[in-house]
Amino acid sequence: MFTINENYLKLPGSYLFSTIGKKVAEYQAANPEKPIIRLGIGDVTQPLAPAIVEALHKAVDEMGKAESFHGYAPDLGYDFLRHAIAENDYKARGCDISEDEIFVSDGAKSDSGNIQEIFGMDNRVAVCDPVYPVYLDSNVMAGRTGVYREDKGCFDGVIYIPCTEENHFVPEPPKEVPDLIYLCFPNNPTGTTITKEQLQVWVDYANKNGSVIIYDAAYEAYITEEHVPHSIYECEGARTCAIEIRSFSKNAGFTGVRLGFTVVPKDLKCNGTSVRDLWARRHGTKFNGAPYIVQRAGEAVYSEEGKKQLKEQVAYYQRNARVIYDALKDLGYTVYGGVNAPYIWLKTPDHMGSWEFFDYLLDKGNIVGTPGCGFGNCGEGYFRLTAFGSYENTLEAMERIKKL
Amino acid sequence: MFTINENYLKLPGSYLFSTIGKKVAEYQAANPEKPIIRLGIGDVTQPLAPAIVEALHKAVDEMGKAESFHGYAPDLGYDFLRHAIAENDYKARGCDISEDEIFVSDGAKSDSGNIQEIFGMDNRVAVCDPVYPVYLDSNVMAGRTGVYREDKGCFDGVIYIPCTEENHFVPEPPKEVPDLIYLCFPNNPTGTTITKEQLQVWVDYANKNGSVIIYDAAYEAYITEEHVPHSIYECEGARTCAIEIRSFSKNAGFTGVRLGFTVVPKDLKCNGTSVRDLWARRHGTKFNGAPYIVQRAGEAVYSEEGKKQLKEQVAYYQRNARVIYDALKDLGYTVYGGVNAPYIWLKTPDHMGSWEFFDYLLDKGNIVGTPGCGFGNCGEGYFRLTAFGSYENTLEAMERIKKL
Repeated sequence: MFTINENYLKLPGSYLFSTIGKKVAEYQAANPEKPIIRLGIGDVTQPLAPAIVEALHKAVDEMGKAESFHGYAPDLGYDFLRHAIAENDYKARGCDISEDEIFVSDGAKSDSGNIQEIFGMDNRVAVCDPVYPVYLDSNVMAGRTGVYREDKGCFDGVIYIPCTEENHFVPEPPKEVPDLIYLCFPNNPTGTTITKEQLQVWVDYANKNGSVIIYDAAYEAYITEEHVPHSIYECEGARTCAIEIRSFSKNAGFTGVRLGFTVVPKDLKCNGTSVRDLWARRHGTKFNGAPYIVQRAGEAVYSEEGKKQLKEQVAYYQRNARVIYDALKDLGYTVYGGVNAPYIWLKTPDHMGSWEFFDYLLDKGNIVGTPGCGFGNCGEGYFRLTAFGSYENTLEAMERIKKL
Repeated sequence: MFTINENYLKLPGSYLFSTIGKKVAEYQAANPEKPIIRLGIGDVTQPLAPAIVEALHKAVDEMGKAESFHGYAPDLGYDFLRHAIAENDYKARGCDISEDEIFVSDGAKSDSGNIQEIFGMDNRVAVCDPVYPVYLDSNVMAGRTGVYREDKGCFDGVIYIPCTEENHFVPEPPKEVPDLIYLCFPNNPTGTTITKEQLQVWVDYANKNGSVIIYDAAYEAYITEEHVPHSIYECEGARTCAIEIRSFSKNAGFTGVRLGFTVVPKDLKCNGTSVRDLWARRHGTKFNGAPYIVQRAGEAVYSEEGKKQLKEQVAYYQRNARVIYDALKDLGYTVYGGVNAPYIWLKTPDHMGSWEFFDYLLDKGNIVGTPGCGFGNCGEGYFRLTAFGSYENTLEAMERIKKL
């Protein structure tokens, strides 16, 4: 008789955003006349920029003609895209990353879920608390997290790094040394950032202890301040200890287009075995490339027109972040993030629980946000709002919150 | 110090098709004037059908406008596509599969590589020999296959089911009962098929023994004979023992577009736990949906125009298969497949080894095929040609083989 992967049964009921989706659908079904504003799931709302649309149309036409048709893509992604990435995201920032260290994928969620697979089952995993659920859940599924302690609401085998008001939501290297460390900056969900000096401390710690940092930089386009690094490879020594995951979802509105990439430097080795080669093997065996038309759209992100248009698009969301941040501040809320990130992290009023505030905001304001506790124990009492709504909806949402 | 997933080191040098790609690139670099014809990797060459191109353009335009923009897709895939699949691939064939048992993905390769993950590590895996490498390799990576025996060229912990001339390449249920059984019909690489009665034997065997059949039906569009099942759900009892994986790559030329789906019936359970729910959980946690524009293209596959155009496209490749089959037969080769499948499986002449014949054919005929031994020990002495080239190239390739 076959058996199932029992580790799946250790997971909480359902994926956080699936739960929110269901709750909202139920509320909407019961209250069809209520105009709900969604500032919960980090999904963008602005249309694709003209340069992207043009590139997509052009690539579609190519696919419709025998002489320019494209079948299976190269394992790592098309050269034209990896070249654009290497030049714009790395070389232009003084980071030493070559094209064959870049792996194009269908998105940062897949990559951040799959990356753990190339590491041993005995690795100790560290995640920040609160944290994007995929890092932890994918390690739970793999069986790397030990038993779930219902009373403590955490896994025995995981090192949780608290990110709290006290440390300004910047994690500090833990005393017990982890093997795999997930870091995400600008941070989801807190919207806070790390300075280059603070990140250098982590890189040095990882190199000293033989740890790997899995660095999720999906929100780097939202950085406005000079001292905040866009890539971990801006830190010295990162090539021997860090993997970086990037997304086109938030800098180019690709949440429904699906494109991302992961950088695994050739200098990252375990007793002589190249981690890059393991990821290449996984990529080649269990993935078959991002669509040609989507990779062409990715290329357009780096064109002159694309850059210009996307700068405006990001600025649009940044304005929303400012609107939310300022409005909540004015109302006396304690608010974090929003400056170098599209997320606003607020303390729930009157010591409400995160889910309690979720229900309250949905019911009284018809606004969907994300309960902080969905990201971990330290997120309890907090709530995440995103800047990815339309400007009008963002203003309207703030008006509604004012009237609560 | 972090460790790597040591199971990866048990894998042969590189993924079969990556090796072929490298060999061909090297040959072409050394012989830039030689006009190589590629009948190796199963990649299509015909352009996307007009109905698909139209659907893609329309969806791209939608993505360019705020009012019709689509962000994150629903976890399982868009209703419009799952509905079309349920109606056309299942209901129309009398198969009882509902929309919420269908999971849209970025392709059958990803799904067939990832599906093992929801099962326990103690499951005994059975694969046919020869076999599409992904089934085996993904289980090697997961650590479900035991030690590799260099002398035997096989894994200790795997049940290999020989598919040979003697059994007409139709596998028979093994005496030692496996927990997970990978079957692929029409078969890659042999191009042979299974009758409904023969498949029913497997379904009964799986139900009796508590095994799961992972049924890869990526090539079903190439079936021409009445008695060959298009879906395993045509067999009685398959809902309690079978998962089916489907692709748009070969019926609609989507190798570079990336779309597939997997069916997990709700009746497939392990001590009360729904396997469907586990796959839903994986899908929701480690994947973020196929692109909206690609799912719209998938929908167009089922439109009246799409169906008509794709029937012609498949017929085009079927004619190629006939050309190869007949030409090789005339030359005295022993040939299999090609009738209900886009693959022709030939016995190498003069007892040449598979790779020996690969080099011979590349060097003397400038034709790329796939060495049978790359699919398993029983593939040694065989060679796979695909019908996915252009008609002209297929004719030319046969002319070249005649002159060898």
